[in-house]
Amino acid sequence: MSTNQQFVPGLDGVIAAETAISFLDTEQEKIIIRGHELIDLSQNNDYIDVVHLLLDGKLPTASKKTALEKKLTSNYDIPDQVMQILSLLPKQTHPMDGLRTGLSALSGYDGDIDNRSLEANKSRAYKLLGKLPAITVNSFRLINGQEVVKPDPTLSYSANFLYMITGEKPTAFEAEIFDRTLLLYSEHEMPNSTFTARVIASTNSDLYGALTGGVASLKGNLHGGANEAVMYMLNEVKTAAAFEELIQRKLINKEKVMGFGHRVYMKKMDPRALVLKDALKQLCEKKGDYTLLEMCEAGEEVMREDKGLYPNLDYYAAPVYWMLGIPIGLYTPIFFSARTAGLAAHVIEQHNNNRIFRPRVHYIGESY
Amino acid sequence: MSTNQQFVPGLDGVIAAETAISFLDTEQEKIIIRGHELIDLSQNNDYIDVVHLLLDGKLPTASKKTALEKKLTSNYDIPDQVMQILSLLPKQTHPMDGLRTGLSALSGYDGDIDNRSLEANKSRAYKLLGKLPAITVNSFRLINGQEVVKPDPTLSYSANFLYMITGEKPTAFEAEIFDRTLLLYSEHEMPNSTFTARVIASTNSDLYGALTGGVASLKGNLHGGANEAVMYMLNEVKTAAAFEELIQRKLINKEKVMGFGHRVYMKKMDPRALVLKDALKQLCEKKGDYTLLEMCEAGEEVMREDKGLYPNLDYYAAPVYWMLGIPIGLYTPIFFSARTAGLAAHVIEQHNNNRIFRPRVHYIGESY
Repeated sequence: MSTNQQFVPGLDGVIAAETAISFLDTEQEKIIIRGHELIDLSQNNDYIDVVHLLLDGKLPTASKKTALEKKLTSNYDIPDQVMQILSLLPKQTHPMDGLRTGLSALSGYDGDIDNRSLEANKSRAYKLLGKLPAITVNSFRLINGQEVVKPDPTLSYSANFLYMITGEKPTAFEAEIFDRTLLLYSEHEMPNSTFTARVIASTNSDLYGALTGGVASLKGNLHGGANEAVMYMLNEVKTAAAFEELIQRKLINKEKVMGFGHRVYMKKMDPRALVLKDALKQLCEKKGDYTLLEMCEAGEEVMREDKGLYPNLDYYAAPVYWMLGIPIGLYTPIFFSARTAGLAAHVIEQHNNNRIFRPRVHYIGESY
Repeated sequence: MSTNQQFVPGLDGVIAAETAISFLDTEQEKIIIRGHELIDLSQNNDYIDVVHLLLDGKLPTASKKTALEKKLTSNYDIPDQVMQILSLLPKQTHPMDGLRTGLSALSGYDGDIDNRSLEANKSRAYKLLGKLPAITVNSFRLINGQEVVKPDPTLSYSANFLYMITGEKPTAFEAEIFDRTLLLYSEHEMPNSTFTARVIASTNSDLYGALTGGVASLKGNLHGGANEAVMYMLNEVKTAAAFEELIQRKLINKEKVMGFGHRVYMKKMDPRALVLKDALKQLCEKKGDYTLLEMCEAGEEVMREDKGLYPNLDYYAAPVYWMLGIPIGLYTPIFFSARTAGLAAHVIEQHNNNRIFRPRVHYIGESY
């Protein structure tokens, strides 16, 4: 038992899995998803394509894509009892905690829950992805004392998701921008929530358990909570000059500025942020109001010059979601919903070639 | 970014934390809890002592112990709405999934949930420990269509827990044996569920989230589910000879025999198993029926001779719980309840000196 190893806080740089799912190639500055570049996918494909790529290993043919869309649509509804459960949660419940409770409760409806075969795992993942918009949106709505919104099976996955969030049928342009954010959030190698899901799955526990752990992880403000924090910061002021000042004040006070830097990218820009910066530009153009873009650019400049830090995906996802009319409390739950495709792929991969995660410790307690 | 490191499946032997909480000293064959030997504690102390040791760093004085017992008792009750939530779960829900949903829902009642100070974290942990028997037992009862049992604040922690499980006030002897199982299950270095809890906590997520992940992890049959599996195996036959045969048949068929071996102990016996073997002996003596002990000993012998494997804690916890009249479906939830003391200590330690867990991968997918 090699307990004379060096302790690496946060397992920084430690290899925790062999995976065919994704890889952050920091030398080439590329995010690879099963052999494809994520940024290319965001220009040429939609979220459903990437869901298929993640779970079935390759991009879908036209007929496979139609079949997948049908599968998702036919699973849009969630049981009434789960809605009742969500309506019983206290009003102060955090949206991510509401989502976690809903997902956890759903496990009881899976009559095949002990089946860990590849086919059963994939089928479970697709069914759950179909249900995610309804559970994500309605957990949030019920906690906030709002009426339940029923999914609209005539709408595509992303259009229905955005419709349920805002209560209004989105334009094709809005649905496309929203779809792109889901695609960019879908998978990203081994962040904490993905690691959590694999660690849980390695006990031979099921997808629901791995995902509830994933929600809990993503809730943390050092992880998924960052997109909300960015929006609250943007909402503190109204102009680019005031935002620049705000960030400078935070730096002087040694406060953490959310939405910047990423352990793996280090000092390079998150390529996903560039795609969403462009989406923000398009949204501003449509609205004829460039304020949010100007504010973000001002913040970006201060952080680059003063700290050498670049924006990550969350920094530009926040204003994009704001301009799409999405309540701030849903930013992290949406991130989780989109990431479920990647998390499910990792759970399946872990189950297919498993060794339970069971590391050791350095004991620094009292002698004995 | 050092991705040329070697991949160690399951992070076997990798140091994932510096901790003052516990350590498995495999050379000395000792389980150390904050400088004390767990086996000594099981002979001289009770579960409440160890809860205090884990969360407050040392064994309690008499007055501290009284104060702690009072704190736990005053938190026995859980909100009616949580009971209603549990009663809405489908009857086929796994007991661990019911417990997970209940714990997840409880988060909404914590008005101080974003406070990560040491004092707030400790207070939260103690309150939750007080509520655990009620939530563990009643999630199980409600899923099984039984009436809710109210906690009895006149009973000690373990006596109340056992009373709620069986519906009958336990004798001092029964409560003491049950207490000893809780103590032995309370903490054990860095098994998968503890690792899960620390990984989740490292995003600055809260205790409820870390624990829901912990339940999900412990549910897996490669982890906590083992105690139930042992009991189902024991219940397949009625005599020591038949049990010996059963195990031999399993070995011939290359089936996994649960309750044996432990990655860290390797080929040595889990010292906790010895304590519970003795407890089983005492229970058999009281009942005047040694059948279960004889069966376990027969199984132990086959596994030692044929495979060189020794029983772990789960192997003797199962028949002890059976003889205490505990339903098999509650074995793993009880294990989780007891372990919550250790999990909470790890979450607190992680929050106090944090670096987010974010390892890397070896990409073995398609080239790009």
